[in-house]
This record gives sequence, structure tokens and C-alpha cells, in this order.
Amino acid sequence: MGRVTVRRAVVKVSSSGRLRKVDALAAEEPLELRVVGRALAVTMRTPGQDVELAHGFLLSEGVIGSLEDVSIARFCEGTGPDGQNTYNVLDVALAEGVAPPETGVERNFYTTSSCGVCGKAALDAVRLKTRFSPAADPVRVSPEVLCGFPDALRERQKVFESTGGLHAAGLFTASGELLVVREDVGRHNAVDKVLGWALMQGLVPLHGTVLMVSGRASFELVQKAAMAGIAVLAAVSAPSSLAAELAEEQGMTLIGFLRGSSMNVYTGQERVSEVASVVRASAHDDRAQRDQA
Amino acid sequence: MGRVTVRRAVVKVSSSGRLRKVDALAAEEPLELRVVGRALAVTMRTPGQDVELAHGFLLSEGVIGSLEDVSIARFCEGTGPDGQNTYNVLDVALAEGVAPPETGVERNFYTTSSCGVCGKAALDAVRLKTRFSPAADPVRVSPEVLCGFPDALRERQKVFESTGGLHAAGLFTASGELLVVREDVGRHNAVDKVLGWALMQGLVPLHGTVLMVSGRASFELVQKAAMAGIAVLAAVSAPSSLAAELAEEQGMTLIGFLRGSSMNVYTGQERVSEVASVVRASAHDDRAQRDQA
Repeated sequence: MGRVTVRRAVVKVSSSGRLRKVDALAAEEPLELRVVGRALAVTMRTPGQDVELAHGFLLSEGVIGSLEDVSIARFCEGTGPDGQNTYNVLDVALAEGVAPPETGVERNFYTTSSCGVCGKAALDAVRLKTRFSPAADPVRVSPEVLCGFPDALRERQKVFESTGGLHAAGLFTASGELLVVREDVGRHNAVDKVLGWALMQGLVPLHGTVLMVSGRASFELVQKAAMAGIAVLAAVSAPSSLAAELAEEQGMTLIGFLRGSSMNVYTGQERVSEVASVVRASAHDDRAQRDQA
Repeated sequence: MGRVTVRRAVVKVSSSGRLRKVDALAAEEPLELRVVGRALAVTMRTPGQDVELAHGFLLSEGVIGSLEDVSIARFCEGTGPDGQNTYNVLDVALAEGVAPPETGVERNFYTTSSCGVCGKAALDAVRLKTRFSPAADPVRVSPEVLCGFPDALRERQKVFESTGGLHAAGLFTASGELLVVREDVGRHNAVDKVLGWALMQGLVPLHGTVLMVSGRASFELVQKAAMAGIAVLAAVSAPSSLAAELAEEQGMTLIGFLRGSSMNVYTGQERVSEVASVVRASAHDDRAQRDQA
């Protein structure tokens, strides 16, 4: 776990001159994920919680649906130039009867029989793969609870604090309890680590929870939430068009610009309960948020 | 170009209640890139400048080195569910003698003959593929010019202004002239669009220029800059550990946290002019400068 940050000499240049200092950088290393010895994907990730990452990735891809679908996950014994195990190749064996994933470019996608790969085809692909429908989750969460999530996430972002270089994903209950936070140089990896943690805890499908991400909400993140049965995805920043379309198609609640005391609800507003009288309204904060948006 | 943003109804929830409004979201659609009919990659991107994106991607991958390496790039004729061409599948034919790329998971990477995929192997892979060495570029740029880049980039980020949802990449000359800005939901796509534009203008190798990105600097972005011969990469936010290692290995200048009137120079400080004057000055000159200051 010493590899989560890497210390490095840096020269700070400013109007007052140049200053040599030591900076902590977020660690980035390739991870090759294999299924029964066959390469499935290589992702650039921050080392740590790699077994969770692998489980979350395979859940996101529709390959596995529970911990029982994996028979063993182990690091390969290959070594780097220094003769040490790199811990950068993880091989997963699937339980009997679990179909191995397709490999190759077309793996995830969206390719129809014609030439017309498109957003609609991407939505269809998720629908075909989902085992746990987010639409079936009747969870409701209050605006007051939601507005507490960004601070709660930030407080737990230890590596971000020292590097400024990591994305974070956190899983909360609808009553506001923080279940887990994971950080990574790639936001998709941070989400996969959260989902893999939950799968290994036996918590999937993740009905009754909210997934919160530190940055923007892309199609890929909504897809991952949907595959784990998460009905509410909240982001500090903006969603993309296809993220909103997929959330709508999957019957999910998608929240963006969750900052201060306000948020934008793009889809599924019925899961956000009415504002209670106890909201600590701050006209000043609210204006500041509008100005940023 | 009407697809760069998508308008969507949204409910703003705040302490003062619920407000229905219309929000502009950054458009996200899959693009399938084919080489002579064979799928090479699918990327989720913001539509527009797709031919540039394809050229930049192929340059980054080491498949092409100039515009002459491509014989034709055209959208396939496939249609989406509405019967319209999706403009989401782009097929590139290579000029005679240009080897088609490998496809499959191992395409980019880093896999050594043993089990040991690692950061070192990732660095080696870039070195093997580079046609245009950034190390050979003697470009220098002043801190004053560099500090003007973030504002110049932001002023040209039209879609970000309306959506808050796009990454940007800009190419500048060392004297501060902004050559091109591209925006995309994926930062790697924004960079590929910039590189593709430059290739199509006959500007590659991009010696004498600085690539500026709106967010963080990952390994992948440094790799793309290196493949285009760009010696200076500047980012508003933090680099990763492997980004700094690759920049060092390639003899590049990597700048992070370029904000206000300061920046962190992680590698290649000799290209930041005032730092260079200190490094290269003789002891006598150095004393003389101090006395003058």
C-alpha cells in the first residue's frame, strides 16, 4: 500500500522565484485483468484494492453477479525488471457454469448488425446485460442527506488531500451512512473498486444505496451503477447527455451539480423527497452555486 | 454540429424548493473507429471533429506519422433506429505500405513476455513506438507566457461554458499564440482532436509548441504528446506518477498545477526559460544576476 502515492522532486515556479520541493503524486500503474489466463482488459489504475477492482469490473461487464461466480482471483507470479512481483496482473477463475466474457473491441458495445453504432445501441446493450434492475428499487433520499455527501466524501479522500490527483467514489445508504470510499486516478476504477467491495460483502444488488462520484457523470459510470442495481447516482459535476438518457431508460435517479445546498435532478426525481422545513437555507450559498453553474 | 450539446429538462432542488428548467448537457455518443473495415476501438466522445479524432488517435497509436499515411477517412453508411446515418462509425483506409494496427486487448500495452506488465514496460512501449522525439525539441517558454494559457483556454471553451461538462485541450506556440482548442467529454479525445488537427495541417512533429489540458495529466496524455513530438505538456491540475516518469524518460517538460501566477515543473525544467537561465548560467553570471535583482 506504499504505492498509492509516489514522492517526487518538483520545482515550483512563481512570481517570487523558484523553489525546490518534494511533491506527492497519485500512483498510476497498469493492471492487466485476465480471465482464466486470457487477457480481458488493461487499465491504468492506482494500485490497491485490485481484487475489488477486478470483481467490480466483471460485475459491470455482466460477467459475474455474485461472489460465488468467482472461484479464485490471484496475482500472477510475473516479475518486473527489479525481480519483484509487479502485482499488476490479476487472473480470475470463474465458477463452473459461469460463461467467460468475450474479448476484443466489440466486447462492450453497441455494435448493431448494421454499421450503425449509436447511443440507442449503447442503451440497448446495457438493458440486455442488466441482472439487477435499478428501476425496481423504491429507495427515497432527502435533499438534506444528499447535500451532506460531498463533504463526507471529501473528508475520506485521504490521497486526494495529499496529491490533488485522484477521483473518488463513495457508497452511502439512503439515510446517509457512508459504507465505503475508494480513490483512483481513473474514475471508472474508483467506481469498480466500490462495486467490487460491495459484491465481496454480499451487498449486490445495491438497492437502498446512493453512489456518489467526485467529478462528472458519464455514460460509463451510469452503466456501472445500473449493473449493480444502484438506483441513485449523484455527481459533484455535470452529467453527459448519454448518461442522462441511460439513467432515464434504466429508471434511475441521476443527480448532478450536487454542491452546497442544491442539486440538479436529471431523471427519477420521485426518489428525492420533498425539502423538509429543517433545511438550513443559506441565500448566500445558493446564489454562489447559481453563479458557478 | 447541433450535437455538441443536448438540451434536457431538469429539476433544480434547493432550500427554496423545486424549479423546473432546461439544462444544456455535453453530448456523448460512441464512435467506432475502423481501419480498412476492421474495428480498432470504440470511444465515447462528443460528436464533431471526428476525422481529426481518428487521425489523432492513429498518430497516438503509432499507426500513422503524416497525413499521407491515410488514403481516405469516411463515415460508414449505417443508420440508426431513426433511419438517419449515425455518423458514429468512421472507417480509415491506410496508404500503401502503411502497416495496419494490431487489434485486441494487447494493442497498446505493456505486456512483456513474462507475466510482468508494469510501469517500466509501459514506458518501454512508448519508446519503441515514438517517431518524433520530444527530447530533440529545444523550445523554451517563459513562465509569463505559460501563466496566460489557462485563461486563454477557458475563453475558448464555448461548450464548457454552457454545460460544465467538457474537458479541453489547446495547442499554443512557445510565444503564446493559441493555435487550436478542442473540447470533448473525454480528455483523451480532446487531445486526439488537437493532434489530428495538427497532423492534417502538416504541423507534426509539433516541435516548438505547448499542449495545455484543462484537467489532470495522466500517463495516456503524456504518451499522446510524446507521439506527436510535443516537448511541453502543461496541465491545470495534478499529474500522476507514471505521467511524470514517462515525461522524464522521453525528455519532456511536464508542468502541473498551472494556475494563477505559479506552476509546478515536474520534469525538463530547462525549457521553462527563467529556470533555464539559472541552471545554465555560470557561477559568475548567477552572482551578477542576483546582484542586479
